[in-house]
Order: sequence, then structure tokens, then C-alpha cells
Amino acid sequence: MSLLDELQARLPADRIQADPDVVEAYSNDRAVFEKSGSAALLVVPRSTDEVVAAIEAANAANVPIVPRGAGTGLTGAANASDGCLMLSMHRMNEILEIDTTNRTCRVQPGVINSDLKRAVAEHGLFYPPDPASVDMSSIGGNVATNAGGLCCVKYGVTRDYVMALEVVLASGEVLRTGRQTIKSTTGLDLTGLFVGSEGMLGVITEITLKLVPAPPPPATAVAYFDELEPAGKAIVEIFTAGHEPSLMEIVDRTSLRQVEAVFPMDLDVDAACLLLMQSAGDDSSANIAAMAELCRSHGATDVYHVDDPHEGDMLIEVRRKVWPAFEHLGKALLPEDVAVPRQRLPELLAGITDIAERNDVMLPTIGHAGDGNMHPLLVFDGNDADEVERVRTAFGEIVHLALDLGGTIAGEHGVGTLKKEFIEDELDPLQLSTQRSVRTLFDPDGRFNPGKAL
Amino acid sequence: MSLLDELQARLPADRIQADPDVVEAYSNDRAVFEKSGSAALLVVPRSTDEVVAAIEAANAANVPIVPRGAGTGLTGAANASDGCLMLSMHRMNEILEIDTTNRTCRVQPGVINSDLKRAVAEHGLFYPPDPASVDMSSIGGNVATNAGGLCCVKYGVTRDYVMALEVVLASGEVLRTGRQTIKSTTGLDLTGLFVGSEGMLGVITEITLKLVPAPPPPATAVAYFDELEPAGKAIVEIFTAGHEPSLMEIVDRTSLRQVEAVFPMDLDVDAACLLLMQSAGDDSSANIAAMAELCRSHGATDVYHVDDPHEGDMLIEVRRKVWPAFEHLGKALLPEDVAVPRQRLPELLAGITDIAERNDVMLPTIGHAGDGNMHPLLVFDGNDADEVERVRTAFGEIVHLALDLGGTIAGEHGVGTLKKEFIEDELDPLQLSTQRSVRTLFDPDGRFNPGKAL
Repeated sequence: MSLLDELQARLPADRIQADPDVVEAYSNDRAVFEKSGSAALLVVPRSTDEVVAAIEAANAANVPIVPRGAGTGLTGAANASDGCLMLSMHRMNEILEIDTTNRTCRVQPGVINSDLKRAVAEHGLFYPPDPASVDMSSIGGNVATNAGGLCCVKYGVTRDYVMALEVVLASGEVLRTGRQTIKSTTGLDLTGLFVGSEGMLGVITEITLKLVPAPPPPATAVAYFDELEPAGKAIVEIFTAGHEPSLMEIVDRTSLRQVEAVFPMDLDVDAACLLLMQSAGDDSSANIAAMAELCRSHGATDVYHVDDPHEGDMLIEVRRKVWPAFEHLGKALLPEDVAVPRQRLPELLAGITDIAERNDVMLPTIGHAGDGNMHPLLVFDGNDADEVERVRTAFGEIVHLALDLGGTIAGEHGVGTLKKEFIEDELDPLQLSTQRSVRTLFDPDGRFNPGKAL
Repeated sequence: MSLLDELQARLPADRIQADPDVVEAYSNDRAVFEKSGSAALLVVPRSTDEVVAAIEAANAANVPIVPRGAGTGLTGAANASDGCLMLSMHRMNEILEIDTTNRTCRVQPGVINSDLKRAVAEHGLFYPPDPASVDMSSIGGNVATNAGGLCCVKYGVTRDYVMALEVVLASGEVLRTGRQTIKSTTGLDLTGLFVGSEGMLGVITEITLKLVPAPPPPATAVAYFDELEPAGKAIVEIFTAGHEPSLMEIVDRTSLRQVEAVFPMDLDVDAACLLLMQSAGDDSSANIAAMAELCRSHGATDVYHVDDPHEGDMLIEVRRKVWPAFEHLGKALLPEDVAVPRQRLPELLAGITDIAERNDVMLPTIGHAGDGNMHPLLVFDGNDADEVERVRTAFGEIVHLALDLGGTIAGEHGVGTLKKEFIEDELDPLQLSTQRSVRTLFDPDGRFNPGKAL
């Protein structure tokens, strides 16, 4: 039987989408260069049983499956493969339980990150991971990509919050991993294997997350520097001194100028960079003042710090405006995503500047300075083949620069197809073959997301 | 060739121990009931290469390998198998690097936990996991068992601190997992698989750990309760109110009486339990006062709180004296280790009391109340077959009570052989078979720690 017949035999008709325009609309994530294949059909399941049914149908018809959250990924991990069944989890979007004493919640994968944040905030709780896509991306997608964000410098990444999962395997079996207790040491950790697995091991249908008490409102500081190097030294010094900022972002000169050009806000466009910091602990005011002072002592030209969270929000508004400001140019935008150990950040920033000049590409840099996780943004004319070639070269050079500095090719966006060509540069042959063996163990027929990541 | 010949062909003579008394001394962990087998030989390697050599020798001679840290485990996970090669990692005990900016360190597995704590404290840093064996147990053993401790209620368990590992696989290959950056999303998480794997997947030869800034000295409160139930409610209320204690322990009446009998310290021996709390944040004094007030409002009969860390240390001294006080009886001591979601703690405590009465066994209970992780302590005459039988029954009943309350059979001690008979009661057939498949993938010949855990 055809895939459509197999699906119709197992699922209500309204779960199956065959309209090519609809299928196409669900066949791409937000990766720039990555080409998606042509999917055969789309299924939008409403329960774990329906996910099982869809997988059984795909097995019977022998077609690949590409699971998909909200499609906000940046690496092509949720792009269609040719002839595949797209499985969009957006209708499984219930918050099943919020446990205020155990500080946990159980959710379906389609719950939008910021919806969960709001729901737990009503109970005085906080779900920290905050990727830029926080208002659009789903918890299931966040788990599948091990999403990061701005607050990770203090609170960690998605992995640090996943306690238990329900996953439908390629066999159609429903695997439950993890535990509902704060501690457990029973057996091997299968939960962690699925976090960041980019849809290769199974379809996540339920997630138990750890929550933390809502932090007090943050105090905020911003500091301009004339050069990148002293900014890097100030960052190092802030951590060496024992501070725990809840946010530490950097915006470089090219970004400052573009934001100022599109959204005038009296930025110092001659500064080499602007460092943005928040502290959200009990002594946030004293801590942010101390961090500001460390910036001053490392040569920051202008430093402001405020206790009022609304004023603080305005001070860091520039960070949110960078992407829209460059979008305003009407050019293609390709965000890099590399990370290095914190103290190598000055070298990474200097190297990125060098790569931009050498390849003659527009390469503003913003990023999570406190994590050593940078997002250089390649801004280019996608129709200019020569420029595209230079952009590709610069992209690869940034990846290899990060590796040379002891870093990683994918800080928080994952590998997908975008970074697949570099995976052998980070993972040695034994680690790569071991990871592939684990993948094959869970998915012997290569049903899930073929051609992605590993 | 024999195992001895194979080893001598590959290793310096002084790494190999054939003296039966020495081998025997390294063939047991601290589990009470669990019988160890008779090991053939002991190897004490000094490098990763020597671990490889030992594994290759065992492969050539076709004998099992039991890796061992400091032997402080409580489940038999490091007990010898008959004819096995014991591999004791205690000589690989160098702290290789402490990185104060990235807040990480690299260590060999034999480093003692408290030695690492002291070394990083000199740099203003803190390695939180603090099992009771902190002064004896090794980081490698802590990783292999995913060790917990008193501070986990705020800081998490060993798993939360392991960033990267070097592991020698059964094939003799050296696998490097993880990363040196705060964030990374490159490929599948193999690191987490080895944390808590109880020596079943490979021999850990190097560990990269995350560190945190040293917390300020804690404020301390203790509260006596006339009944267990209001104590449980106070605990629930403290968490629901958003507090983040850095320690929250409970000591029951039987324990209070035994401590007072052996180490008189003016304890209220008529109280049902004593709750011990610390807060180590910036506002620790205000937070501990608020927690103390919550205890009072839930009927605590006597409540004390102090800001001075030395006075606080004296207030919680009772917790450290429980085990020595019962050891004083000269009886066998079998510690349980179960955990439940926090709000089920009152039911767990009530159920344990009931189990003690019904089986006529001495069953004092202490534990990490903030984690829902309890250590009921079975105190008995190991030569009284009837009492031993009742103890075994009570032991199993506690495990099943924890499961009935949504909990786990092994909060922080692992499974080993002690809890192996219960593993099917926690893990459903699919999860168990999946975990066993992962084990077989890494160790197809069953070389490592046969008969343990899974």
C-alpha cells in the first residue's frame, strides 16, 4: 500500500495533509543555505497513539520520517527529506501538570516555550531556557536541539532541565525514560541521549521538566569599549572574580551602527563593542555595580548601570534590535553559532574580525559572551555568486577558528545539515562511529531524519 | 596464556598484584549483604595506556573486569566477580587542570572528592557533590555512581557537573566524549551515558568537571516536631514558598535517641524528628529566618536559627553522628536509599514507621528531606537468621513503598547487586531491554562488571 493508504488505515482523515502547498509549508526550518527535499505527506498527530500509528504507517510504506517542532531551527535539521512523512507536533501542545512543590512540570512537545514560561510564572516558578525563538519555538524542538539562550550563562541549557521523556521509537514502541524524583540512580541515562538528538532517535511525545523559583528582577549594566581585547579581558575578570551574571551579551561595532541607522537610540557607534550584563540574585544591585566597576577598570569608555528592571530592559533593547536592523537591508542573513572556553573569547573575536576582512564579507558579531558562544552574522547578497562563495569560506573559517581555540562547531543551534560537513573536525573517528552505532541501535532502518547531523 | 602472563607481557611488574590478601582487600565495596566473588588478580594502573593494556590482557585471557574507585560504594557494584581482574584506579589521582575563568577542572578518576574541593576552594571555586564518603570516595567512583549528597537540594548531583570524559572501552579503544565549552550541541550526548553507569560501559580515565563560585557561609536553622506529618508539610511549604535551601536533612526520633545515648548533646529525644536547614545565598540570614518561621507556623515545638557558620555547624553535628552512634551498637547496618517526589515525603515517612512496626525491626530514618531522598537504616544482628529475614522483608517493602509513591528504588547509591532484584519493578520491559542493548553495544562480550545493575 502507499503511504497515504497506510496512514488512512490508521488515522482520522483530518490528521493527514496531502495538499502540496500545506506539506511544503511544513517542510522547511529557518536555515538559510540548506535545501529541503520534497515531502510526500504531512501528519499532525494529537496523541502518542497517533504518533505510533504514523510511524507504523511509514514503516509499512518504507518511507523516512522527519519530526518537526515549530520549525524555527537554523540548521536544516527539520527540513524534509525526499519522499518523507513530515510529522509536525504542534497540535500536541498541552501543559499536562505543574507541580509547585516538586518544582517540575509535564508538557506535550508542541507547547510554545514562552507559553510555558508564563504558565509556571503564575506559580512563582521559572523555566529558564530562552532561545531567541522563545515566542515561537516549542519545548519539543527545544529538547531535540538542546536549545540555549541568553540566560544560560547562569541557568544552563535545556539539557539541564529535562528529567524524563516519553518517546516513540522507530519500532513504534513507546519508551519512557527518566524519573519524577529530584534524584535517581537506577540504570543508564537514556533521557540525556534524546536531548539534542535532532530527531534521529525517536519522536518525543511528553517531557518532564525541572523548574526553579522565579528570580528577583535583574539589575542591568552596559559598558562600551574602544577595543575588543579589553572587553574580553573584562569578561574574563568578571568570571574570575566569582560573579554569576544572569545575562552577558556582546554587540560589536558593525551591529551598533546598523541598529543606530535603523532604530536611532543614541548608541556610541564609534565603540568597538557594547557589553550588556544583568544580575538576578538577591544582591543584584551590588553585584551589577561591581561588574560595571570591573569594566571601567579595564578601560570601558562609558558605563551605565540601573536597578530598575524596566530601565534595564531599555538598556539591553539594542541586543534584540540587531537581527531586525540587518533584516532591514533586505539581504540574506546566515547566523554562525560557535562556542569557545570563556577565556578564548578575545582570540575568537579578533579572529572573526580578521576573517571578515580577509574574505571581504559583512560580518557583525553578537553573542552570549558569558558562555563563549558567539553568533557572527553573515550578511550578504544571496544572488551574488562570488559573495556567496566568500561567505561560505568565511563560515568554514569561523568554525575551524573555534575548533582551534578548543571550542565547538555548534554552541546551541545543533548540526542539522548546515554543520554536518564539519562534524568530523570536532568528533574524532571513534566518537563519531560510537554515536552512529547508538543511532543505529535506536533506528536500525534509518527511518528518522536520514542525512542529518551524524 | 594465563591472565598473569598476559598482564606481565604488557605492564610493569609493580602494577600487578597477585598476593591473595591484597587482591581480597580490593575485592569488596561497603555493601552489607552482598557477597563478592574471588578475583584472580589486581591491577593498579598509572595511566590511560596502562588501563588499555590491562583491558587488552583481560580480553586475551577472556576474564571479566571489575573497575573500582575507592570502594566506598554501598551496593556491591565494585565487588569482585569470580576469576575477574580487579582494576583499582586509586593511583591515577592527579588534578590535571583548574581553569578559574571557564570554571572547569580536569582530573584523573582517583582524585578524592574532598581533595578536589580543597584544591578548587583555593581559587574561590566550589565542587558541590558531597556524598557522605566525601573524604574517602574518588571522583571516578562518584561519576560511575552519579553520587549525591547533602548539598544536592540546591546544587544538583554529580551528573550536573560532568562536562567531558575519557573512557577506555571494552575494545581497548580510548573514547573522548563531551566538550570543554559551557555550551555545545554537536552530536549525541555520550558523556551522560557513562555517568551512573556503575562500571558497565567502560573505565573512566579522565573527567572534566564544571565548578561554581564558592558560596558565602550558610545560615542554619533546626526545628523539632512532635509528629512527622507537620514536618513533612513544613518541608512542602518551604519549597512551595520558593526557598532554595542549600541543605535540608531530617533525623527521626530513633536516631535522635541513639545519638543522645552515645554522644550526649542535649537533644530533645521526645521529638518525632529534627529538621536541619541551611541557606547559602546572599540573603541567607533572612531566608533561614523565613524557613524557621514556616516550621513554627507548622507546629514545630523548638526552632533555633543562627547566622554564624560555626554555630550552624554545631547545630547540624547531630546529622553526622547518626551513623557512628548506631555503629556503637556493634550491629549490622544496612542503609536504604529511596527517593520520592518531595510532596510524598510525609507518606514515605509514615510508611517506613509502619514497615518497622509490622516487621519488628529497628529502622531509624535520616535523609535528604529536601530531595525526597531517604536513608532508612536497618540495624540488626547479622547472626540472627530470623531477624535478617525480617530485615530483608522490610528492605523490599521500603523499595516498593517508594515506587508506589512515584519514586525510585535508588536515590543516590546506585543499583549494584543490592537493588538488582528490584530493577524490573522500576524500569518497564522496554526501558530495561533498551538499557541492556546500550550496554551490549558498548560491551558486546560482557567484559565489564558482569551481573551488576542491569
